Amino acid sequence: MNTADLGLPVDVPSTALFTDQYELTMLQAALKAGTGGRRSVFEVFTRRLPEGRRYGVVAGTGRVLDAVENFRFDAGVLGFLRERNIVDEATLQWLAGYRFSGDIWGYPEGEVCFPGSPILRVEGSFAECVLLETVILSILNHDSAIAAAASRMSSAAGDRPLIEMGARRTHELAAVAASRAAYVGGFATTSDLAAGFRYGIPTVGTSAHAFTLLHDNERDAFRAQVDSLGRGTTLLVDTYDVTEAVRMAVEIAGPDLGAVRIDSGDLLLVAHRVRQQLDELGATETKIVVTSDLDEYAIASLRAAPVDAYGVGTQLVTGSGHPTCSMVYKLVARAHSADLKAPLEPVAKKSLGAKSSVGGRKWAARRLDEHGVAEAEVVGTGPVPAELADAQLLVELVKGGQVVAREPLDAVRDRHAAARAGLPLSATQLSRGEAVIPTEYL
Amino acid sequence: MNTADLGLPVDVPSTALFTDQYELTMLQAALKAGTGGRRSVFEVFTRRLPEGRRYGVVAGTGRVLDAVENFRFDAGVLGFLRERNIVDEATLQWLAGYRFSGDIWGYPEGEVCFPGSPILRVEGSFAECVLLETVILSILNHDSAIAAAASRMSSAAGDRPLIEMGARRTHELAAVAASRAAYVGGFATTSDLAAGFRYGIPTVGTSAHAFTLLHDNERDAFRAQVDSLGRGTTLLVDTYDVTEAVRMAVEIAGPDLGAVRIDSGDLLLVAHRVRQQLDELGATETKIVVTSDLDEYAIASLRAAPVDAYGVGTQLVTGSGHPTCSMVYKLVARAHSADLKAPLEPVAKKSLGAKSSVGGRKWAARRLDEHGVAEAEVVGTGPVPAELADAQLLVELVKGGQVVAREPLDAVRDRHAAARAGLPLSATQLSRGEAVIPTEYL
Repeated sequence: MNTADLGLPVDVPSTALFTDQYELTMLQAALKAGTGGRRSVFEVFTRRLPEGRRYGVVAGTGRVLDAVENFRFDAGVLGFLRERNIVDEATLQWLAGYRFSGDIWGYPEGEVCFPGSPILRVEGSFAECVLLETVILSILNHDSAIAAAASRMSSAAGDRPLIEMGARRTHELAAVAASRAAYVGGFATTSDLAAGFRYGIPTVGTSAHAFTLLHDNERDAFRAQVDSLGRGTTLLVDTYDVTEAVRMAVEIAGPDLGAVRIDSGDLLLVAHRVRQQLDELGATETKIVVTSDLDEYAIASLRAAPVDAYGVGTQLVTGSGHPTCSMVYKLVARAHSADLKAPLEPVAKKSLGAKSSVGGRKWAARRLDEHGVAEAEVVGTGPVPAELADAQLLVELVKGGQVVAREPLDAVRDRHAAARAGLPLSATQLSRGEAVIPTEYL
Repeated sequence: MNTADLGLPVDVPSTALFTDQYELTMLQAALKAGTGGRRSVFEVFTRRLPEGRRYGVVAGTGRVLDAVENFRFDAGVLGFLRERNIVDEATLQWLAGYRFSGDIWGYPEGEVCFPGSPILRVEGSFAECVLLETVILSILNHDSAIAAAASRMSSAAGDRPLIEMGARRTHELAAVAASRAAYVGGFATTSDLAAGFRYGIPTVGTSAHAFTLLHDNERDAFRAQVDSLGRGTTLLVDTYDVTEAVRMAVEIAGPDLGAVRIDSGDLLLVAHRVRQQLDELGATETKIVVTSDLDEYAIASLRAAPVDAYGVGTQLVTGSGHPTCSMVYKLVARAHSADLKAPLEPVAKKSLGAKSSVGGRKWAARRLDEHGVAEAEVVGTGPVPAELADAQLLVELVKGGQVVAREPLDAVRDRHAAARAGLPLSATQLSRGEAVIPTEYL
């Protein structure tokens, strides 16, 4: 296929252009200075969780692996860089042969994380690692922000399924990644067909107000929908008068009507009234789906209402107030040469203020209390204490340039549910607070 | 090329899957009921601006035209829909031949907009129009949100150039669209190579802290950078001690040093100190670039500081607090048949509360006062008053399925600057307030 057909950034022939220009100019200068080959360690971490949040969620790792594997400079890309004079000929030559050949370790996708957690550790020459900064951060910052919001929503929803329906509120391809991240965070389904196609996420959807308005009256619209989609369909009952619509819905579809959807009004009140009406009409199995600017707080407030499923759009794809994470990609250690035996020296920016960071190649482990509940995120640069050896968090993702840790999305989703369940109970409080466990540096 | 190489939603062979499932199920039901052919008018508008904002910015229209043109159901897409049982065979047959054959009118890209402005008007059969809802809204809601933030930032920056550098804070392809929208809103350059490649936006970038940390000391790093990138480069001076770094930068590059970049600390204070030091060292032409979580307020607060350019990341790509718009795509009128002579009847959802809308196929015009300054957005459904005939806002974008209004991005950028300049001066106040002109319905 031809990406021109997508109406997308056509002619972007690899992930290599999802890169800030300074990565290439640094590469050029380092190659010329003879320092580009120095063995280097970069780490991805965040200095803080979004204000009030108790835990973060690592999401996008699988997409990072795809991006690294496909990070290549073909003739089209090289031609662009040459024409724009972005780097010199020696650098272009070097880029033409680029394949990431180093190692990547990281938190497995779906894990929870905290300030300072070394979510991803990229090791290789400075030259090969420095180029990956932007594409790695784009993916992890976006996907992790969405997954964190999704996780809070799914814990607020309890056993009731959540439908992701935010595609219209974000960039068309960000929407596909958002569906994926929402699924990781515990959502059950999506309205986005591209997400179903690409990631196999179950898709749902029946009708909108336009369908009712198209017809001469609500009765014609309901009849047309039931005729075509069957009695199990979900009828949207708030185009005109909800009570009248529910009556008509059951009259037309019978008590086997699958569900009704309410998309406006005081959902708590309306859900109670609709449930009572459905029950009185004998439609005791007919479900109630609510949708309308829901977030985790609205979902929690509907806990006592007779609601069977929630559809969430805007607040999911915008991270419920935190549309991005503040993950950074920092050089934390480097040797004086490419020699694997040359000692790694920790490095860190020394400026005053919030932007300083901790140097050194890090491991991380989650220490549990006597009940098996997480009590601290332990991050260290020295040897791993024996008692934490089995609690280490980083796993090997890429070895010598080869991806070694692909996994199905359902495994990621299950991992997240387990990781969240392993946190202290207060993790799922929606009220604002500190990280639910502290980060300790060894 | 093969999109599999992108590590993206591979195998999505057209924009047709950037669609919520309910659009296809509505299509199926309407085709079966014989109502799918009814002539219909859909409009995109927003009921409100983000809280406190004085005006909105229309962006993404050019991308919408690409998306509509490439909205096709090929064998891969149809196979997916069949396998998942999303629609029936009759509908699949219909989709196989799908090409949008209707008309689209809209505000030209870059225009400002207000609550109720009919930003896009899509006309054709219900069946062909209903399918475009999600992809149109994804693009307009994302791009317009970014452009609105960019516009506020560029008006706060005045003549000083703004550099877009937010790719790492948003989805990798949303980043490309964000660069484009930022350019429309008045940004001068981007760090994102993909945006340079795809849209021809000028790209910039030199080095990060990692480059300094790679080397044995700051002196080696600066020397390596100047050796490779020349004296005109921008040296990052806040890895260790700013004063020492500025001294060394001028020592190494000489007074022709292009610029220094400051990425942390109290930018107002540091910029003043660095300017004085540069001047004392004879580097009077060396510019100062600041970057560090800037938004329009921080940019405005630096108005009095000796700053030559601003780099903006997170706050730009997240819409400075408003990462999406609340634009909706609503059926506003329809006939009883496909006949072009059949009368269009206005339709609108009647439910109580904030989600009601105004039915009818609309025109819009911007009424000017005696000084030529905008005083009202006039939206109507009847005949256009003679005195507003020349002030109409909607232009023809697609005619009988053919795109008729492609234009270069610089024209869009210029249009935005002119449109903003035509608003009352209070439009560019950063303080929270109401829309700067009222919307009047005729």
